[in-house]
Amino acid sequence: MKAIQQVAFGLESLQLKEIPTPTPGPGEVLVKIEAAALNYLDVALATGTYSKELPLPRIPTSDGAGVVEAIGDQVTKWQPGDRVAIHYNQLWQHGHATAATNHIRTGVSTPGLLAEYAVIPEYALVRTPANLTSVEAATLPVAGVTAWTGLMGYAGIKAGQTVLTQGTGGVSLFAMQIALAAGAKVIATSSHPDKLKKLQELGAHEVIDYKKYPNWYEEVKRITGGEGVHATLDIAGAATIVNSVKSVGFNGFVGLVGFIEGAQLPIDLFTVVGSYIRLQGYSVGSLKSFQELAAAVEVNNIHPVIDSIFPVSEAQEAFRYMGSGNYFGKVVIEMK
Amino acid sequence: MKAIQQVAFGLESLQLKEIPTPTPGPGEVLVKIEAAALNYLDVALATGTYSKELPLPRIPTSDGAGVVEAIGDQVTKWQPGDRVAIHYNQLWQHGHATAATNHIRTGVSTPGLLAEYAVIPEYALVRTPANLTSVEAATLPVAGVTAWTGLMGYAGIKAGQTVLTQGTGGVSLFAMQIALAAGAKVIATSSHPDKLKKLQELGAHEVIDYKKYPNWYEEVKRITGGEGVHATLDIAGAATIVNSVKSVGFNGFVGLVGFIEGAQLPIDLFTVVGSYIRLQGYSVGSLKSFQELAAAVEVNNIHPVIDSIFPVSEAQEAFRYMGSGNYFGKVVIEMK
Amino acid sequence: MKAIQQVAFGLESLQLKEIPTPTPGPGEVLVKIEAAALNYLDVALATGTYSKELPLPRIPTSDGAGVVEAIGDQVTKWQPGDRVAIHYNQLWQHGHATAATNHIRTGVSTPGLLAEYAVIPEYALVRTPANLTSVEAATLPVAGVTAWTGLMGYAGIKAGQTVLTQGTGGVSLFAMQIALAAGAKVIATSSHPDKLKKLQELGAHEVIDYKKYPNWYEEVKRITGGEGVHATLDIAGAATIVNSVKSVGFNGFVGLVGFIEGAQLPIDLFTVVGSYIRLQGYSVGSLKSFQELAAAVEVNNIHPVIDSIFPVSEAQEAFRYMGSGNYFGKVVIEMK
Amino acid sequence: MKAIQQVAFGLESLQLKEIPTPTPGPGEVLVKIEAAALNYLDVALATGTYSKELPLPRIPTSDGAGVVEAIGDQVTKWQPGDRVAIHYNQLWQHGHATAATNHIRTGVSTPGLLAEYAVIPEYALVRTPANLTSVEAATLPVAGVTAWTGLMGYAGIKAGQTVLTQGTGGVSLFAMQIALAAGAKVIATSSHPDKLKKLQELGAHEVIDYKKYPNWYEEVKRITGGEGVHATLDIAGAATIVNSVKSVGFNGFVGLVGFIEGAQLPIDLFTVVGSYIRLQGYSVGSLKSFQELAAAVEVNNIHPVIDSIFPVSEAQEAFRYMGSGNYFGKVVIEMK
Repeated sequence: MKAIQQVAFGLESLQLKEIPTPTPGPGEVLVKIEAAALNYLDVALATGTYSKELPLPRIPTSDGAGVVEAIGDQVTKWQPGDRVAIHYNQLWQHGHATAATNHIRTGVSTPGLLAEYAVIPEYALVRTPANLTSVEAATLPVAGVTAWTGLMGYAGIKAGQTVLTQGTGGVSLFAMQIALAAGAKVIATSSHPDKLKKLQELGAHEVIDYKKYPNWYEEVKRITGGEGVHATLDIAGAATIVNSVKSVGFNGFVGLVGFIEGAQLPIDLFTVVGSYIRLQGYSVGSLKSFQELAAAVEVNNIHPVIDSIFPVSEAQEAFRYMGSGNYFGKVVIEMK
Repeated sequence: MKAIQQVAFGLESLQLKEIPTPTPGPGEVLVKIEAAALNYLDVALATGTYSKELPLPRIPTSDGAGVVEAIGDQVTKWQPGDRVAIHYNQLWQHGHATAATNHIRTGVSTPGLLAEYAVIPEYALVRTPANLTSVEAATLPVAGVTAWTGLMGYAGIKAGQTVLTQGTGGVSLFAMQIALAAGAKVIATSSHPDKLKKLQELGAHEVIDYKKYPNWYEEVKRITGGEGVHATLDIAGAATIVNSVKSVGFNGFVGLVGFIEGAQLPIDLFTVVGSYIRLQGYSVGSLKSFQELAAAVEVNNIHPVIDSIFPVSEAQEAFRYMGSGNYFGKVVIEMK
Repeated sequence: MKAIQQVAFGLESLQLKEIPTPTPGPGEVLVKIEAAALNYLDVALATGTYSKELPLPRIPTSDGAGVVEAIGDQVTKWQPGDRVAIHYNQLWQHGHATAATNHIRTGVSTPGLLAEYAVIPEYALVRTPANLTSVEAATLPVAGVTAWTGLMGYAGIKAGQTVLTQGTGGVSLFAMQIALAAGAKVIATSSHPDKLKKLQELGAHEVIDYKKYPNWYEEVKRITGGEGVHATLDIAGAATIVNSVKSVGFNGFVGLVGFIEGAQLPIDLFTVVGSYIRLQGYSVGSLKSFQELAAAVEVNNIHPVIDSIFPVSEAQEAFRYMGSGNYFGKVVIEMK
Repeated sequence: MKAIQQVAFGLESLQLKEIPTPTPGPGEVLVKIEAAALNYLDVALATGTYSKELPLPRIPTSDGAGVVEAIGDQVTKWQPGDRVAIHYNQLWQHGHATAATNHIRTGVSTPGLLAEYAVIPEYALVRTPANLTSVEAATLPVAGVTAWTGLMGYAGIKAGQTVLTQGTGGVSLFAMQIALAAGAKVIATSSHPDKLKKLQELGAHEVIDYKKYPNWYEEVKRITGGEGVHATLDIAGAATIVNSVKSVGFNGFVGLVGFIEGAQLPIDLFTVVGSYIRLQGYSVGSLKSFQELAAAVEVNNIHPVIDSIFPVSEAQEAFRYMGSGNYFGKVVIEMK
């Protein structure tokens, strides 16, 4: 099969090769991958910024979707032809994460999905929502599930509450779409007038230009009549946490999803204590969260926001573009 | 002021009279009532079916909305001109109900709202959602809050889950509208093709004619691929509980909101245990639930379904019509 | 190995035989069973009362504990010599039960534990609390986990709350011990003065003779100053549900754990609605619940109440005694 | 009546005076104060460190308990002779705090309790647990409720879980006693061998000398077999937060209860995200939390740890001693 193989750290080492097609063992499923989506972690892994310990060569990317091609012995949940997306924390099925559930991560501790085929345990697949293409479904496993776990799992956002989304990356756009589907009011931030306009077109009730308002929590407070929002997902860590904490109101929720080793967040204890704020660190989510997201996507006909689609032959360009940070939605690579 | 006074049990005893306008004391608000809405309890109270102990004469109805006319000393939350709806369990502010929170009920243990003016404690009012008229807002306090407490409070319905609503009374139509606003899939039942069509127009994803299918849980199971729904509110008690219990899936929620003294529900223990079903009795909700509902109504531009509007001069007709059970949505009496 | 084999329905058909010792496959563990405990279901299964469909011959009993004798390939969690108890709903690991998690039940859909050895998947074992013998640990999987799931999982009992336990069967005695360990006040019922005295010796704060007080909910109300208890587990279904429902207070919890096909519970709707009562059907619990129970047993040095211990040669007598209903705590069979 | 009055900032300005006894208005209760307990906030308020804005003269202290002396009109919950403790956030009755519930704080925005009598709204009193003296009960309102809200409200500690308590101040000792009553395992820290010994005598399962182990999280991890604890309350903020965060395990809870304006906590984002840690800011708790605590104290016969008792004539000494930080438990002033 064709696959992108990384033979050394550095984006120039992502090479399209012909390698043996894997065979599904007992309980495993062979998925014909139709699309893979990129997350910032993929870039950090490929450049070696995240860790130099990763065994090479490796096939990159954690997000992907396609069609069941064949099933191994004892597989009961899937049949050839089923459209599926691949779950990230494969062993995290229900409930809370533990050290045990999190040591298998698709594309990090297993071969990634930038390949014609991948072998996945049958318990680590989710049925693709009927309203999505595989290109769209490929964006769900990391960014979509992260947004769902934060807003609907931890924060338990209800219709009529207010959610603040930060910027136009994948997690934040999913957060906006999920919040809107759940009947919440959305305040969205960005630094470009064009992006602010797009956010409004996607349904944001209010938008804030965070370049224009460096203390943008003041705008959030103004828009909410001084009360602050119920929840926000803080993506950028040290750069945004001060504003995030001051943007939420009494009993507010700040999801901490950035994942930058060694970062020290300067938390304003007085505000956090005085406003009964919850700061919740977490990462991605369980299979059940993914299934819940998939149901919400289908019932509410949510279409993930795709910034751009690259053919697999231009995988290096896709990674470079992802690294630039200058996108609106997800960057996807099609396996054709 | 003009008011409907009930001088004896029986609907014919509901008479329009001129009585003294009340004066707000410290912490109290004088509300000019613009509309009152009927619930089945109002009919049972007026006919004496519910209890013969109620002191007479009394002003009936629990649901109402209007405009703040004047405020008593020490009132800080409201000003003349504020548009407000009246809370039912006046002392139930937050959290769970207790015996103490539930002994004051608007229109039962206090004068009702079928009058030009009513005096209400300042803590028992909710700001009328900006998108609603007072006629619409008058429908929220009992039926709307009951639906909200069940689905969003107890059941915690999330986007993508499935809710079953039963019939076309006020609670069930609010349940449908709330569930849709929250991104849930709705299966609705009724006994008339016309009503089924209206339910679909209001957004129901699926409808079931319960006359055609006396074992309508089978249709629910068929529509949900055998899984059953996540939640339903059982309104009719003994007449529907068998179907309700069999309509929900694993870990399903059945809200018990009917309130008929002495009724014995035949609960199928095998199904309840085997499917991990929760049966939750409750009634109406807290001020906080009402405020949450009001926010959801405004953010999602929900308009309560009004079956009919009677002038106060035809209050008896309104009560009789309410007693007939043959309506689609709320029956409202305008105070003009 | 030696094993009790049931070759036909009827307790006289439980026979001690020599059969082949099973071999653990990949991911499986061979456990040397030291003790098995009986539940009422074991009697119903053995007599055929529960179902005549069960394939025969079969090895009975769901509850058991022992020592890891050998491990299959790929087993990472256990080593020979580890002391373990066997989980009942083997596939139910975390979170809520589903149809998928519940179709494998130890001793029902798998060979039971009345044998010298049993092969168990590595994910369906729990480390025996350090303070327990295998005889004691054998009582935990069904009765202990049922009590834990109800009181600590669903009801979330806190220190200072009041729990009502009903009778002296395994689930109820575990409920008492767990409630006491969690700092709750316990009111316990029984029909014999001797048993009432034993309940007090075990720590029950108050006891009620339910023979003396057929409407024993009145005693519960009296003891609690009219408030009722926070939670109770209803074991007997139709015989006790009326008293159970009237024994809990506002927002009270009634766990429904009896499992009798076709039983109709006469639920008093007026009380359930008026007191905001939760009726929660459920059965046993997840592996995580079992692990939580095991930790609580160890930290609080809880010793399960053992009524009697039979040698395996007297297994029929043990089943007959279990069927008599006249015990105080668990009936255990030692494999020696 | 006699009362301590603060006429200027500075502990030397706390003077015992004769001032008019207040009279209870409608809905108010006159409490004969028997004891008041000190919190660090009392010292900061008295010295002016917390704020120079506080109107003087004032009666200091937030914590107190005594006996109902007289009741105003409309009071239904209390009678002369009732033994009561005073609630801190008087308007915070149930559920979550809001800006509205938190603007009345006993002894901060109302006259404090270092006086023979205090007038308190009837809804801001809690019945003194039967097993406590007023000296003991006076310690509950701030320190006890803070510990309860964190461990039992937010963290939901269950029997068998592990709690880490930090130091020997009032909140931490209550946290230990509550955790033990709830069946949890307790690891406690202190810097003095004598205090470590006392902690063990009070029931701590394990103790750590944090002077000996500046990176004491390593000891916590060692004791818990690498898993970390389920919850801890971080009292000291910047000085301890690094160790606190690394002491909890997956899904761990860190309550942030310190209240030092302007403090910036250096939060290790990598650990918080990677271990799914919850940081929850909060302060004290609701009336319902206080009632729950009082019930737990009574059922489990918990006696608050009293470091020392001063007569009211030595109030200045009591405040100075409180300021020294060198205590084991609560510092109480008796009104005699």
